[in-house]
Amino acid sequence: MNKNAKIVVGVVGASGYVGGELLRYLSGHPEVEIAAMTGSSQQGQAVESLFPNLKGIVEGPLTEADYDALGRSCDLVFSSLPHGISQEPVAQLLKAGARVIDMGADFRLRDAAVYEKWYGLPHQQRDLLAEAVYGMPELHSEQIKTARLVANPGCYPTASLLALLPLKGKLTGTVIVDAKSGVSGAGRSANVGNLFTEVSENFRAYGVGTHRHTPEIEQVIEHKVVFTPHLVPMTRGILATVYASSSIEDLLPHYRNFYADHPFVKVLEDLPCTKAVAGTNFCHLTVRSSSEPGLSVIISAIDNLGKGAAGTAVHNLNLMFGLDPLTGLDRAAVYP
Amino acid sequence: MNKNAKIVVGVVGASGYVGGELLRYLSGHPEVEIAAMTGSSQQGQAVESLFPNLKGIVEGPLTEADYDALGRSCDLVFSSLPHGISQEPVAQLLKAGARVIDMGADFRLRDAAVYEKWYGLPHQQRDLLAEAVYGMPELHSEQIKTARLVANPGCYPTASLLALLPLKGKLTGTVIVDAKSGVSGAGRSANVGNLFTEVSENFRAYGVGTHRHTPEIEQVIEHKVVFTPHLVPMTRGILATVYASSSIEDLLPHYRNFYADHPFVKVLEDLPCTKAVAGTNFCHLTVRSSSEPGLSVIISAIDNLGKGAAGTAVHNLNLMFGLDPLTGLDRAAVYP
Amino acid sequence: MNKNAKIVVGVVGASGYVGGELLRYLSGHPEVEIAAMTGSSQQGQAVESLFPNLKGIVEGPLTEADYDALGRSCDLVFSSLPHGISQEPVAQLLKAGARVIDMGADFRLRDAAVYEKWYGLPHQQRDLLAEAVYGMPELHSEQIKTARLVANPGCYPTASLLALLPLKGKLTGTVIVDAKSGVSGAGRSANVGNLFTEVSENFRAYGVGTHRHTPEIEQVIEHKVVFTPHLVPMTRGILATVYASSSIEDLLPHYRNFYADHPFVKVLEDLPCTKAVAGTNFCHLTVRSSSEPGLSVIISAIDNLGKGAAGTAVHNLNLMFGLDPLTGLDRAAVYP
Amino acid sequence: MNKNAKIVVGVVGASGYVGGELLRYLSGHPEVEIAAMTGSSQQGQAVESLFPNLKGIVEGPLTEADYDALGRSCDLVFSSLPHGISQEPVAQLLKAGARVIDMGADFRLRDAAVYEKWYGLPHQQRDLLAEAVYGMPELHSEQIKTARLVANPGCYPTASLLALLPLKGKLTGTVIVDAKSGVSGAGRSANVGNLFTEVSENFRAYGVGTHRHTPEIEQVIEHKVVFTPHLVPMTRGILATVYASSSIEDLLPHYRNFYADHPFVKVLEDLPCTKAVAGTNFCHLTVRSSSEPGLSVIISAIDNLGKGAAGTAVHNLNLMFGLDPLTGLDRAAVYP
Repeated sequence: MNKNAKIVVGVVGASGYVGGELLRYLSGHPEVEIAAMTGSSQQGQAVESLFPNLKGIVEGPLTEADYDALGRSCDLVFSSLPHGISQEPVAQLLKAGARVIDMGADFRLRDAAVYEKWYGLPHQQRDLLAEAVYGMPELHSEQIKTARLVANPGCYPTASLLALLPLKGKLTGTVIVDAKSGVSGAGRSANVGNLFTEVSENFRAYGVGTHRHTPEIEQVIEHKVVFTPHLVPMTRGILATVYASSSIEDLLPHYRNFYADHPFVKVLEDLPCTKAVAGTNFCHLTVRSSSEPGLSVIISAIDNLGKGAAGTAVHNLNLMFGLDPLTGLDRAAVYP
Repeated sequence: MNKNAKIVVGVVGASGYVGGELLRYLSGHPEVEIAAMTGSSQQGQAVESLFPNLKGIVEGPLTEADYDALGRSCDLVFSSLPHGISQEPVAQLLKAGARVIDMGADFRLRDAAVYEKWYGLPHQQRDLLAEAVYGMPELHSEQIKTARLVANPGCYPTASLLALLPLKGKLTGTVIVDAKSGVSGAGRSANVGNLFTEVSENFRAYGVGTHRHTPEIEQVIEHKVVFTPHLVPMTRGILATVYASSSIEDLLPHYRNFYADHPFVKVLEDLPCTKAVAGTNFCHLTVRSSSEPGLSVIISAIDNLGKGAAGTAVHNLNLMFGLDPLTGLDRAAVYP
Repeated sequence: MNKNAKIVVGVVGASGYVGGELLRYLSGHPEVEIAAMTGSSQQGQAVESLFPNLKGIVEGPLTEADYDALGRSCDLVFSSLPHGISQEPVAQLLKAGARVIDMGADFRLRDAAVYEKWYGLPHQQRDLLAEAVYGMPELHSEQIKTARLVANPGCYPTASLLALLPLKGKLTGTVIVDAKSGVSGAGRSANVGNLFTEVSENFRAYGVGTHRHTPEIEQVIEHKVVFTPHLVPMTRGILATVYASSSIEDLLPHYRNFYADHPFVKVLEDLPCTKAVAGTNFCHLTVRSSSEPGLSVIISAIDNLGKGAAGTAVHNLNLMFGLDPLTGLDRAAVYP
Repeated sequence: MNKNAKIVVGVVGASGYVGGELLRYLSGHPEVEIAAMTGSSQQGQAVESLFPNLKGIVEGPLTEADYDALGRSCDLVFSSLPHGISQEPVAQLLKAGARVIDMGADFRLRDAAVYEKWYGLPHQQRDLLAEAVYGMPELHSEQIKTARLVANPGCYPTASLLALLPLKGKLTGTVIVDAKSGVSGAGRSANVGNLFTEVSENFRAYGVGTHRHTPEIEQVIEHKVVFTPHLVPMTRGILATVYASSSIEDLLPHYRNFYADHPFVKVLEDLPCTKAVAGTNFCHLTVRSSSEPGLSVIISAIDNLGKGAAGTAVHNLNLMFGLDPLTGLDRAAVYP
């Protein structure tokens, strides 16, 4: 790649919220050129009418996805296709020569049997599954740099794992992750349950004991986790309240030390809140002791579409192309 | 009807927000027995799972609508079918002997040609259109008492007309109705534009110059109206800000006098707010002079599903069956 | 008391959200007459301007509190004074002959030393503390019937305890209560942290390990509890997600059986949501097994101002005066 | 100024929402160095605790304001003091050699008598009032470039005037501006009326006929305006619905032409919404004909803290220091 040339990227599945958020981040990234935006059902529609915030910033119609052509013309393709749908396109993109960051769940679980159990589908690309790097930069930055295929982590796993990673290998007893998410995590599909009328002034749990992000968290932390997601009447943000016992005594300095070289994870003294990280790739977290000896309460806040999806994907792009990790990701959240 | 017997009612189209709101009001009405709840697409589903607030209060499955049987077994049927769909069912219900309150738009416009122009459909029941009483109790309480068929007013027309009725016949110049509604006015159908994510922290106008409630307002007030609806990030409520010139000088006493005998319209000194009337059949309104001589600003607040739909329907039931208008409608809004 | 006479009640501290909610419930209660509404800082102000939902329903100025006169003229007084302030007024009201339901925290903790530790104040009325009945109807209905002084439970304890009561005496290991509340729980005082701008599109934990409702929960359930409250961007509602291990195997029938005779607690198969109980005295709850053997997840939803405050207070009034528990409390929530 | 040196700026009154928003924009501006942040009541407090979004981006304590020192050390000072308070500090800053952008109302109204009538205060700096340039870049870009003192426009005037400027001199009849704003326009002071509980699920008008932005709009457009502000349950954004008659026939091309060289004003075919411009300096607007001949409906959307305050201030900075107007202001809004 020419030193002055921009990184040519494509966004597959650009009509959803993750796709739109990728376009927003990429439009503010100085080293990137968006060469293609594809959408299946929304094909032909102007991206600035789907995302009115992009008016005058990223414009043009969504096109049909020709994975071979896309893979040949792009340095990197972000695939924002639903799980179960992305395996074949990812294979084609890689074969045509592009590197790929898959935003979905298809390449996150190492064990195809676990994938099949939780997603109810056989895995069609087991070789790629073996090759894929789980794209959590706080864990695998070296492998990400050279990866052809990065499996971008799920939003809940990101919030949960950033709270748990410093305790990995030292956990004792049951870990409970009580997580709360804004509605954008459910995507942009029309659904009565996500209407404003149903969500506003309402709070509820869902997927208790059955959410598909459970095995992803357990795979990384290598410990049993009881995971309960909840729906918050807000658009963006995840706050994970994690109850964990460990052999570590003084947690705050341990967490500070652990994340000292990770620019997107800020260990606070104050309790974090989701609004302070909305629209960004930052994670705010802190730790507290509980009245139960040895049991800590770790609280982490991210933007599910940012650090939980598109922000980490851009962070991974920066790693894959040798850029400063903060490139295109250095702006503060809008507050209030 | 036996003096002690309850009024037997049916609710057709009980799966929508207006249908659910009718069930809620009727469940708290001492003189009513709900004999039937029908739903087309949601048939067989328990009403308390569609409306979890009805758990332990109104329970049971939605049934298929047999209009002949329904019309024979009920004293009164509320029809909450979409416009264009309700004409034939209403005719059947009347023929079978029930009185009917139609919640939709099909019997509100006196002139079939105006209906066809705005709704794009020919009217199939012109005799019934001629017979139907426009069910605004502040205007037609005597006709409502004896009506077989009541056309329940639209939500925007209710808010707009309550602001304008005291000036009817005395208006000069253009009347502007700048109206703002909560999202429940759009109904319960899955629609990307009404997702929480799209509505929260957002405000916009829609249907500028083209909204179908315009001819309904103009028909009643007998004056040209420029009507602009807006979508507010809230679930319930309409606030109409009405700019009108008239020959009347001292508006507040005039409004107080006009509404003195109408128990659901409260003329305030303070500016009204939607939250104070949410979940009720009350309208709060006030008037202010503007810096333009003769131009007044009238501001009215209602609940679009209450005074703008189900509340007025129950008010009409009370009139049709000789009850105190406040029966089942006397409770205060929940605040905050 | 004359059989046809109404119960004469007073509301002390009627300018706050709990006071306003009491007025709303009492205005819809057929056996109650509101004889007095007092407010300290808001004295002289019309209650319908403080609570615009009460316009035309409960009107008149807040008056100064003369506890002796109030105690003599009322059958029952609700005291909604802040903790630390209510002890002396409650003593005066009782001495003057009224029965009292105290809405605050001053008479909830049996042990004055525990009160002093958590509230930082010595208790001035230890005899009354010994006499007070903890007013949770699902636990103490017999004592409430004859009580002179009822200590109305806190909002978080109500949600938490209704989830835990069926397991009392059978709990093993740490109990974790991860609770989420709407903002009205913080009261009506001006506070930057509770501005719309700070709360909307935001989610955070607060008072981790230090919230004063912890000892109240532990006192009743007689078990150590790790309690974490969170602030939800909504006005009303608490959802408590409770993680508890017990020796009971089949939890759902056990819960159904436990609450069979308690009309305000509905054990659902579905997961509960706060909106379905907002503005009411109902509690919706359900239980789920977790992947950890023996560990259950119990989820309860209430309105913090309803079942968590004013609703239970009216339930207690009904018990204290021999009325059907549902009197004035039988209406469905407004949904959506 | 050295070609490579950054522009040294100070922010006076950095603890409010406008101050915090200035810090956010300035932190992403490549040519600016923030040399001072002052706050009166919040002095000594870390700015990243007041604005948790600034954690790791802009940190440090607010200091006391020494206007002489500030004026000597800064190229430009933004003054975010309340009206009535900023006149003397602005005079000191200018005297000490800094250029000043005043965010408040003190230098916007050309006529001191009008200021005194609407703000109830005599004006203490009439010479500076005469010198001040009204900082609307779409109107006065040349004067702004060389101004010592820029009076940054109010939020409502910005939304209203951008809708009206293309019609200036051609307006006939009464102009009605029905404007709707998010709550952040009210600032960060504790106030019961702006609590989440009071604002959420509520919509109301306020200041009908009395709002202080009325004379500011009229001064610029040189036409009588009836102005009605409303409070929307959202944090950011103003949507102005403007009803105006003019002699111009085909409005959309006229507006497109008028704003062709103004990069922050986007004339759309679609109706604008506030969310698409939140957190930015963009204005989205469109025009529609009404059913009344000659009467147009013009709808504009801005962020009250962005284009309505801090965004325009940074735009003015860019003009004053010869930079590309888009510098630091080119990022898309976060959506959804």
